[in-house]
Amino acid sequence: MSLDSDNTVGASPEILEHIIRCNEGSAGSYGADDITKRVDALFSEFFEREVFAFPVATGTAANSLAISCYTPPFGAVYCHGAAHIMVDECNGPEMFTGGAKLVPVTSEGTKLTLESLEAAHARGWSTSFHHAQPSMVSITQATEGGTVYALAEIEAIGGFAKSNGLALHLDGARFCNAMVSLDCSAADMSWRAGVDVVTFGATKNGALAAEAVVFFDKEKAQEFIFRRKRSGHQFSKQRFLSAQLEAMMTDDVWRRNAAHANATARRLSDALEACEGISMAYPVEANEIFVRIPDAAAAKMRASGIDLKSWPEFGPDCYRMVTSWCTGEELIDPVIRAAQAATAGQDGI
Amino acid sequence: MSLDSDNTVGASPEILEHIIRCNEGSAGSYGADDITKRVDALFSEFFEREVFAFPVATGTAANSLAISCYTPPFGAVYCHGAAHIMVDECNGPEMFTGGAKLVPVTSEGTKLTLESLEAAHARGWSTSFHHAQPSMVSITQATEGGTVYALAEIEAIGGFAKSNGLALHLDGARFCNAMVSLDCSAADMSWRAGVDVVTFGATKNGALAAEAVVFFDKEKAQEFIFRRKRSGHQFSKQRFLSAQLEAMMTDDVWRRNAAHANATARRLSDALEACEGISMAYPVEANEIFVRIPDAAAAKMRASGIDLKSWPEFGPDCYRMVTSWCTGEELIDPVIRAAQAATAGQDGI
Amino acid sequence: MSLDSDNTVGASPEILEHIIRCNEGSAGSYGADDITKRVDALFSEFFEREVFAFPVATGTAANSLAISCYTPPFGAVYCHGAAHIMVDECNGPEMFTGGAKLVPVTSEGTKLTLESLEAAHARGWSTSFHHAQPSMVSITQATEGGTVYALAEIEAIGGFAKSNGLALHLDGARFCNAMVSLDCSAADMSWRAGVDVVTFGATKNGALAAEAVVFFDKEKAQEFIFRRKRSGHQFSKQRFLSAQLEAMMTDDVWRRNAAHANATARRLSDALEACEGISMAYPVEANEIFVRIPDAAAAKMRASGIDLKSWPEFGPDCYRMVTSWCTGEELIDPVIRAAQAATAGQDGI
Amino acid sequence: MSLDSDNTVGASPEILEHIIRCNEGSAGSYGADDITKRVDALFSEFFEREVFAFPVATGTAANSLAISCYTPPFGAVYCHGAAHIMVDECNGPEMFTGGAKLVPVTSEGTKLTLESLEAAHARGWSTSFHHAQPSMVSITQATEGGTVYALAEIEAIGGFAKSNGLALHLDGARFCNAMVSLDCSAADMSWRAGVDVVTFGATKNGALAAEAVVFFDKEKAQEFIFRRKRSGHQFSKQRFLSAQLEAMMTDDVWRRNAAHANATARRLSDALEACEGISMAYPVEANEIFVRIPDAAAAKMRASGIDLKSWPEFGPDCYRMVTSWCTGEELIDPVIRAAQAATAGQDGI
Repeated sequence: MSLDSDNTVGASPEILEHIIRCNEGSAGSYGADDITKRVDALFSEFFEREVFAFPVATGTAANSLAISCYTPPFGAVYCHGAAHIMVDECNGPEMFTGGAKLVPVTSEGTKLTLESLEAAHARGWSTSFHHAQPSMVSITQATEGGTVYALAEIEAIGGFAKSNGLALHLDGARFCNAMVSLDCSAADMSWRAGVDVVTFGATKNGALAAEAVVFFDKEKAQEFIFRRKRSGHQFSKQRFLSAQLEAMMTDDVWRRNAAHANATARRLSDALEACEGISMAYPVEANEIFVRIPDAAAAKMRASGIDLKSWPEFGPDCYRMVTSWCTGEELIDPVIRAAQAATAGQDGI
Repeated sequence: MSLDSDNTVGASPEILEHIIRCNEGSAGSYGADDITKRVDALFSEFFEREVFAFPVATGTAANSLAISCYTPPFGAVYCHGAAHIMVDECNGPEMFTGGAKLVPVTSEGTKLTLESLEAAHARGWSTSFHHAQPSMVSITQATEGGTVYALAEIEAIGGFAKSNGLALHLDGARFCNAMVSLDCSAADMSWRAGVDVVTFGATKNGALAAEAVVFFDKEKAQEFIFRRKRSGHQFSKQRFLSAQLEAMMTDDVWRRNAAHANATARRLSDALEACEGISMAYPVEANEIFVRIPDAAAAKMRASGIDLKSWPEFGPDCYRMVTSWCTGEELIDPVIRAAQAATAGQDGI
Repeated sequence: MSLDSDNTVGASPEILEHIIRCNEGSAGSYGADDITKRVDALFSEFFEREVFAFPVATGTAANSLAISCYTPPFGAVYCHGAAHIMVDECNGPEMFTGGAKLVPVTSEGTKLTLESLEAAHARGWSTSFHHAQPSMVSITQATEGGTVYALAEIEAIGGFAKSNGLALHLDGARFCNAMVSLDCSAADMSWRAGVDVVTFGATKNGALAAEAVVFFDKEKAQEFIFRRKRSGHQFSKQRFLSAQLEAMMTDDVWRRNAAHANATARRLSDALEACEGISMAYPVEANEIFVRIPDAAAAKMRASGIDLKSWPEFGPDCYRMVTSWCTGEELIDPVIRAAQAATAGQDGI
Repeated sequence: MSLDSDNTVGASPEILEHIIRCNEGSAGSYGADDITKRVDALFSEFFEREVFAFPVATGTAANSLAISCYTPPFGAVYCHGAAHIMVDECNGPEMFTGGAKLVPVTSEGTKLTLESLEAAHARGWSTSFHHAQPSMVSITQATEGGTVYALAEIEAIGGFAKSNGLALHLDGARFCNAMVSLDCSAADMSWRAGVDVVTFGATKNGALAAEAVVFFDKEKAQEFIFRRKRSGHQFSKQRFLSAQLEAMMTDDVWRRNAAHANATARRLSDALEACEGISMAYPVEANEIFVRIPDAAAAKMRASGIDLKSWPEFGPDCYRMVTSWCTGEELIDPVIRAAQAATAGQDGI
């Protein structure tokens, strides 16, 4: 076990058990099974309206497919310069859209702001056929910096999108962590705030490999079906994908898992921040911690056996720690103790 | 349970159990785990040489990725007109290659023949920049008609490919069924016969969702890694994909499952063929049966509760039945009895 | 000079002269010039309704762009197996559509027939998300075999397209030759017969490099503008493209040029057909001749200095001859004389 | 006439005359003509080594094709944030590469610098399969800000590219203007400095519509041929493209035209700079002027009939003026006089 990532841990027992249960008997292939139908209903309930939810196995697939339903090949997607779709998907969105452009929007901090979007849009992308045509805004919730957009922030971006004829995508690889953090409903964090399509992440929250692409518009959902198939993301034995989501959405597994991860991150970051010289690069609002540790302290921690993961993107003294649905005290306590020991003498004892 | 397809059934117990086993503890994400390493070794052993085997979740992904490593956007792939890549992947290969062309090669029956390939190639595709440039041949083993290429047939196609500078892809969605049918080695059915890249199917043979793309060339394998990532087929918790393949390749699970499916198909087809007026559209050499049933008999069978699946592609009187790793006598016996009953009076007794 | 093709000849004097005229002074770039505006008006007059006509420089660009506005990446285009878009554009339509499929429809002869289309469509492409989704039919007028669709034939195909929700594209690389042959209006040969988008060819008919993509639907025309730009087919000094079309559409240059080519082809083919043993592979209805010449006669003709161009696609004894807007008697008379001489003794004189 | 752009003017007389000359007689189509052969030789002489030069009609085509021969779909191209390929080609490079990414490199001023490239590369794009893989650097010469890279600056970037396994593309839409400005050879400004492929612009320098893509590597040149064809940029009557380039490269037309444009820009900018309160946004080193004019003065100039073109990208007080091969004194003198008049009283009269 480590704090490396929330995808180095395994799957939640409720989910594995449900897979085993769903293995019984035969089931229609390619999504023509009862479990898949129930998942659609569960998501409609979860989002408090009719939605069209499609299970896929990876976040890159979910994001790229969602974007490709709203962005023509000559389109442009505004996103944060550190967005997963920009940096960590090896041109997946470009592939699925047939060559659209992701436009990195310069922002202080970890979020797109209304001001930064307005400034980017004011550069005039939509004013001439020479330019890629803005089609969409994509935000990540929780963000790549471990922070969480407030509802009002999403609404502001949603308003900007609407008034400029753009769709709004929410990359929710850590959707549930953000919901728990905001203590809000899925509806509030999505369509009520102007979001058109959601990548709902389950893998990091305890699934084996399952995300849902959630549409609020039926026509786009129709197009998705063909795009999913041709990109190889339509599973033949789809019940095993759907089963993961069904278990996740049943009996609040999603909430319990996310709440555990968030609370553990909070406990860890609080303890670290109490150490002399250690600070957080960004507020810890979900289950990712980006912590600044002075070099001497970091060296001592490593010497005592702690595996610190550098995160140079946020500075040379920055380290990332991620908690998950199953991160236990046995994992974080040694980190806390090492940090305390490494920094104990610094204040002049 | 039904004979609809080999992907309406669930997963083999050995595979599910291994997934549960592999869920313990943490593991490197994105393929940096021990199980994935072992899978590579297992496939090298299986193919009797160093191979580069990559787990993906679907056949469309495996085929499209394999082809995209050998076919430029201006390339052309010769395949059978009924090939899965041509008919059933919603332009997946076209997407992954960036717009290459699949050239349907006219053949009698269910296989590409040397003659049909030579005739297609003689039309001169490679002679001018006006045309798509032939880059590859793709064959399906076992075929979409339930037959199996003999080793000599693959070797002939492999020779044609080599001498014309083309790569040879083998879509082995039912690779193991074909191996069992031929009673040959994986090496004989692939690289020794001139195959460059294999889609090794596990899903239909008892996995939840797992195929392997098997390269014999290291450079192509390198390129695959980027193509897999950007198409969304690199799993974060890859251990769960690899675990399926590890279980499949251990203790001959692959062989047992395929042998059961083949033997059951044989028993069923033998019994059907013994019925007056019923015949096979093509020789039953793996686990798919395409059977011609006179209309009157088919109507009687349906009336007695048998769910016959029409296969108009092979004629108006043709029906498909597929056996799997778990098809039991309770499933085929009623079909046989109904066929016998439906045809009993036809010869005038 | 030769009969090799209608693109080995130069440009019509009216067109060159107009280019020189249009070179005077400055003009808005990227299509914001007066000549381009006039071209739009000329085409609207020519087609007897409001059209949206865009000049591009090559037939591959015109065809691929036209198709890409009507075909999603998961789409399929029915066309003749010998269609230029299928055989001679090196996967251009596949590139512009982002990976759609061209489905070669088996037809006797040089035309798509209603029957052949219905048979292809009955194979069920549109019935499942596994398959590429039919979006369009594309026909070539005049055809790749030198024949011309009768209006009723186009109407039948147009009706089929409409009733199946497909768009109809007409590749009119030799549009004017066909119009002259049918002695019909552009409207009759296009939108009145159910055609949605036309590639109007001017290059072969006397331009330097100019075709027009003609839309009857404004929304599609909007999309075209972005697709043209990103594919590099928006000229900065567009007046020079538009000037070619303006000259072509003025004072019946288009008709005179096409009529000359057709009449010359007719004269040549009539004379050849009168020779013992020589026959036409297909009726000569425009400016292309596909002629069968017995081997001995062909050898004699070549020995007398005639450059015969083999056309093996239509058989080992088939040769192609193409007349153009400027093919003179000095070019065809020697061919006729050589054919007469080569076949003179064959009937035993 | 105006100073709007160097593509609102017509074609140089030498070029038009040569087109007329080349219209005589027939010529092999699709590049199999003598003029095209001579153009290849002319470019080899011009670049002082064997090159493979291909005429196309637009800069977007030339750039996108050049890039696509060096960049896989999972690749990344470093370029300036204001680069034409980034901003003004409506995702052309993304289309031709099948979805590669252009990475805007933050630079002060109008040029990529070694430091800015090193900083971008240090972000680690090439270190993991999660990221797009850097394949290329693209620079514009002269730049989008009217400046010209010194040879040493190109060499530094060339060295960076080589040592990091990247290819170097030079977008030379104004190649000749830059050569004249540097008074250097084409070889010095390209392959001797580490450039792998050049877009050689002729349209802005007096052609109707012609650019050359110049390769120094034969293998890449082979691939180009197929990519050109499928993108619709292989002209059938290619002699008319080649003729423009032949005329341009003969008798120093390229140099005369570029020298005239540069000298006129210099005269204009010198005179403007002498006006109180007017300054240049960037040094005027080729034929583009970006000039800052105080609001009051700009208003007066407009009132006196001068058509000032705002260039907000470089600031609210910035205007662009472009001279061309044929910009005469009658065009710039009124601008100078108006500027003088508009600023005359500002220094306290």
